[in-house]
Formats: sequence, structure tokens, C-alpha cells
Amino acid sequence: MKAVVVQRGERKPRVVDRPRPVSDPGEALVRILRVGVDGTDREVIRGAHGGFPADADEMVLGHEAVGVVVEPNDTDLAMGQAVVPTVRSPTTDGDRSWFDRGESDMAPWDAGDFHERGITGADGYMAEYVTCPARALVPIPDDQVAEGFLVEPLSISVKALEQVSAARSAFDWRPESAIVLGNGSLGLLTLGLLNVGDRFDRLYCLGRRDRPDPSIEIIEDLGATYVDSRETPVAALPDKVEPMDLVFEATGSPRHAVETVEALAAGGVGALLGVPEDGEMEIDAGRLHRKMVLDNKALVGSVNSNSGHLATASDRLADLPEWLVERVVTGIYPPERLDAAFADDDTTIKTAVELGEYEKR
Amino acid sequence: MKAVVVQRGERKPRVVDRPRPVSDPGEALVRILRVGVDGTDREVIRGAHGGFPADADEMVLGHEAVGVVVEPNDTDLAMGQAVVPTVRSPTTDGDRSWFDRGESDMAPWDAGDFHERGITGADGYMAEYVTCPARALVPIPDDQVAEGFLVEPLSISVKALEQVSAARSAFDWRPESAIVLGNGSLGLLTLGLLNVGDRFDRLYCLGRRDRPDPSIEIIEDLGATYVDSRETPVAALPDKVEPMDLVFEATGSPRHAVETVEALAAGGVGALLGVPEDGEMEIDAGRLHRKMVLDNKALVGSVNSNSGHLATASDRLADLPEWLVERVVTGIYPPERLDAAFADDDTTIKTAVELGEYEKR
Repeated sequence: MKAVVVQRGERKPRVVDRPRPVSDPGEALVRILRVGVDGTDREVIRGAHGGFPADADEMVLGHEAVGVVVEPNDTDLAMGQAVVPTVRSPTTDGDRSWFDRGESDMAPWDAGDFHERGITGADGYMAEYVTCPARALVPIPDDQVAEGFLVEPLSISVKALEQVSAARSAFDWRPESAIVLGNGSLGLLTLGLLNVGDRFDRLYCLGRRDRPDPSIEIIEDLGATYVDSRETPVAALPDKVEPMDLVFEATGSPRHAVETVEALAAGGVGALLGVPEDGEMEIDAGRLHRKMVLDNKALVGSVNSNSGHLATASDRLADLPEWLVERVVTGIYPPERLDAAFADDDTTIKTAVELGEYEKR
Repeated sequence: MKAVVVQRGERKPRVVDRPRPVSDPGEALVRILRVGVDGTDREVIRGAHGGFPADADEMVLGHEAVGVVVEPNDTDLAMGQAVVPTVRSPTTDGDRSWFDRGESDMAPWDAGDFHERGITGADGYMAEYVTCPARALVPIPDDQVAEGFLVEPLSISVKALEQVSAARSAFDWRPESAIVLGNGSLGLLTLGLLNVGDRFDRLYCLGRRDRPDPSIEIIEDLGATYVDSRETPVAALPDKVEPMDLVFEATGSPRHAVETVEALAAGGVGALLGVPEDGEMEIDAGRLHRKMVLDNKALVGSVNSNSGHLATASDRLADLPEWLVERVVTGIYPPERLDAAFADDDTTIKTAVELGEYEKR
């Protein structure tokens, strides 16, 4: 079967031939339809994040997958069921309690309890067939197979927004304003989620793009306001725009994370999602500490998602306007066109690699 | 009547004679029994925090009060009811919605919606009589009048711990370890709260004191471990002690606030309560940002408390061991002994000024 891998010492993905995997007990065989590409994949490819499986010189890429069950094996899954898989899988010797209680997304990063498929320690999903434990597979409706690769990235936001709501649940939080930092695919999808249900009166999205730009057009068509970070740094938001009840950081910039404390309104919360490298900077820690306290501000870091978040994300995907999904997904490419699938230019928002076609069961 | 005030340009409290206040409609007249002294009072006295009432050159001190209602006026309060008052009071022209929904503690710091009695903009409670709106007065049991001045500081911790629990309520948080940064009265009372109900397996308290020291003895008699910050900086806690599921910062040190991110275990939460002045420092913001995200860490700032927190704090005070309260309270002094009441030395933990004696109703 075809598989898209990155090889040790190389800095670009390639297609290789691999044997079709065989399910262990408790695992189903899944035929993969599409796998999304995101910034984490690019970091893995350039060696900035994650790592190869033990004793391996290549790793199958991909963690945003949608597929159909073709061999249920001894699981409860039905033949032909459309599914999205979770990203984390337990290591052989690790503490499995996080998985047993369905919260592998909360496991400590560096304790060796999990791999992240396609990211660190285990092959990903960008192959024609993969095997997965039943509990790693979340059923989705048949009519979501085309855009089902968006469920995993949406689940990242769903989880972070759950943490946000929880962090403000000890009082009568009445948010009006929210800003997403970052106009990449995760930023735009999150803006879409925040726009559903009119929870926020005013939405903003921060980027550093010149017009005309497809992401700015999407932001404005969602009724949100584009904020150019070159004119309005995050710390200047309260003065130049307004204090924000919610800041959703999806840029990976430590400067943005620090300045989120300044950007927040009293009682506000910042969700941090980026994964930056080390970076020293001079900050007024006294001022930030004092502002956190006197205005009851909160910051929540959030990574990964579990099967519950994937299920919720599938529901949320159904709530998003069709035009948003159509315009966020700028290309679906076969494995022969990896250059296009992994492109990172101003006209690319979200792409996926298509490994197989859906056939109605 | 006697009142303890700080006068503009002076750096120590004094006793003055003031007319007994007269209740407006909706207010009760309260005879004050005792008023606790804390670090905020000392900051107010040295001009580092808060501010005088408009057009006034002196302010009555004190925000940790216990008293009895002596003129219910048109309120629902009973004559002789023991009460503790909230600290915030609405300003004439401010947005009162925070007060109307019972969450004045969540009002923005600098919007001019509230005074803090005895701290900024309004006279405090360190006087023989004060008037308070009925909704600012929280009934407590008669048998708490002696130590009732501890209800307000306890309510600060109660509120912060509510925010902590909320911030970890989106998953199955199973904390084992907690450290209180700061071995002052608030730190010790918080350690006492954390010790009730065996929620944590291991408790720690950080200070910078040499043995023998009364606070270290209290820490150890609570079954907690004393950590000397001169040997173990906050950032070194994971390596030298253990990663902490909860860090409760009660020192006002921005360095501690920043290093709390390092000290936390995966899924952990840091409560920030100190109110430092500005202070620049060089930090590895990239590393802290990344750790917040990859290990799902949270930080919650918390200030002040509302009447609900005071009521809960009264319940919690009843749960604390008697010996703890007796040893935390190192002195009760009449207004004639303000030097002793406001002392800040290594044998003083918590003091109060006694304005009146309790008579059973």
C-alpha cells in the first residue's frame, strides 16, 4: 500500500510502499480516505517537533485522518463505519491510566506514557490502511467523510474551549468579545466555532497579511474584524480595539502568550495552544502578575484531544456553515502531489492528502 | 467613638475620635468587635497600595472585621446578629451590576465601580461603629465572634480555591500534591484549608525562615513539609521536591508567579494572589508558553471575595483545628497598642485590634 513518510535526514515527505498492517486483537483495520496537513506536520518534517518511532529511520506522517472500517476484527465497530482516530496511543511500558479513563490528552508530556501517531514515536495515518484500537476510533456520520479530516483539528479547539469555559465557571461569566490570534486553518475554524450560537457579540482575528487575502475575506464574511498585528500588537488591543474576554492563541508566539495577559478584560481568559521553541525575553513580570490578580484573569494551556472531544467536534463540524468549510479547504491532493499538499503559502489554508475514495456501504 | 486611621503624609496608624456614623436606609449600624491586620494594611500605611477617600486626608483602616448589628434599621438583620462585612462597596457613579449579581469581587479593577473599605476610596472597619448596606453583611454563628476577623482572609483563599477547582473541572483532575508559596497568615490559613478533607496526599509550604520559627512549627504540625526558598527556588521544585498539582502563590513575588509554571505538574494549576509592583525580568517565555500548552497547565489570578465566599469561609473556619487558629493568632490588642498590632516581625503571624467586647444577645 502507499504511505506518505518522512525519512531521517530528509526534510520533505515522500511516498513509499509499505505492507498493509494486520490488526491485533481489539484493533480494527481502517481504510483511510483523507488526511489533513497542518503546521505540526511541517514541524515534524523539518525536525523541529516530535520524533521517529524507536529503531526506525522513517515515520508515516499524518494525524488528522478520516477513514472507514474495513475489518472490524473482534471490535464492536461495524464494517463500513466512518471513523476518525485519536492521535495518542499508549506506549508499551507507560502508565495507561490516562487511556483507561479516556483522558490521554491530559497525560504528562515527557513521562513516556504515549506516542502521538504521525508526530512522535509511532506511525501516523497518511497511508492507505491503518490499524487502531477500537477505543481510538470515533464514529462520525457518513455524510462527513469528505471533510472528516477537519474533525481532529476542530477537536483541538473544542477541548481548549471546554477548558476555557470551565476556567470561568466559578462565576457568572458574561463574555462579549473574543479574539483568535492566528489566521491559519485552526484560527479560522476556531473563529467559526466561536461564531456559532452568538455567544460573543464581537469577534476578532489577528494576522499579519495584506489585502486581498483569502483568510481576511473569510474572517470578514464570518462577521469578525481583522486585526493586523503589524499595526496593533496584542498588548495594544485594549487601547486600540477593546479588552478581550477571550483570547485564543493559535500562533505559537511566546510574545503573544505573554501579551495575552495585557489584552484580557477583567475576568477574561486566555487559551494558549501554540508550541514554541525556547526564547528569552524581557518582560514586566510584576505588572503581568498584578494584572492577573487584580482583574481575576486566567490562562489555560491546552494540547491534543480525546475521543470525547472528537465526537463533539464532529457535532460542531455539522454546525459550521458549508461555505466556511469549502473556503478553508483550499485543496485535496493525491499522494503524487505532496508538494501541493504540503505547500505553505498565502493562498493555501487547509489541504488534505486523499488516500482512498469513499464507497457507500 | 475611637477609630484607627492613617493620615496623608504619615506612615503609621493612629487613634482618632470620630462621630458615630448614622445609617442610611438599607444600612445597619454595626458595633465592631475585632479587626484583623494584614500585609495590605501595611501597604496602605506606607502608601504602596490603595488610596484615600475623595477629598479626605485620612482614612479609617481595616477590612477584616467582625461585629454585631446594633441598629438593624430597615434591614432584615436581627439585633445582636454577629456579622462579617464584605470589603468592596459601590461608588456613586459606578456600574452596580457586579454588586446586583453578588459578584463585586469580579468587577474590573480600574473602572471606578467600587471602593475597597479601608484600602482605597472609603473608610474601613477599624472603628467602634460602622454602617454597612445589608447585602454587605454576612451572618456568622455567635460562637465565631472571637476569631470572626479570620473569615475575610479565609474567604480570599476560598474564592481562589473555587477558581482553582473550576479551572480543572473539564477533566478528571486527581491532585495529590499542593504547595503554598508564603508562610504568612494567609499562607498558613490556606494550608489549613487544604489540609481539611484529605484532598491532597502531600502538602508543602514555602518560606524563607530559619528554625526555630513558629510558622515552620505550624506547617509541620499540619503534617506539611516546609520548603526553604533559599535552598529550593520555586522553579526547582519538580527536581528537588516533586511537581505540584496545585501552587498557591501568596508571596507577591513576580519571580514566584513566573516560576509557578515550571513548578506545576501536568494538568496542574497555579493560583496567583499577590499584588506586586512593576518589575522587569528576563524570562524564557518560549519555554514557559510551551510548558503551559504541552502539559495542559493553568494559571488563575484571584482577588477579593464576595458575600458567598464569606459565608463559605465561615463554614471552613469551623472546620479548622482549634490549635491552628490559636497559634496563627499571635495577638489581640486594644487601639492603644497599635505598634504591637501592626508589628511585622518573625514572631508575629496574625494580629487583630479589639474595638469592643462581645455581649451575648
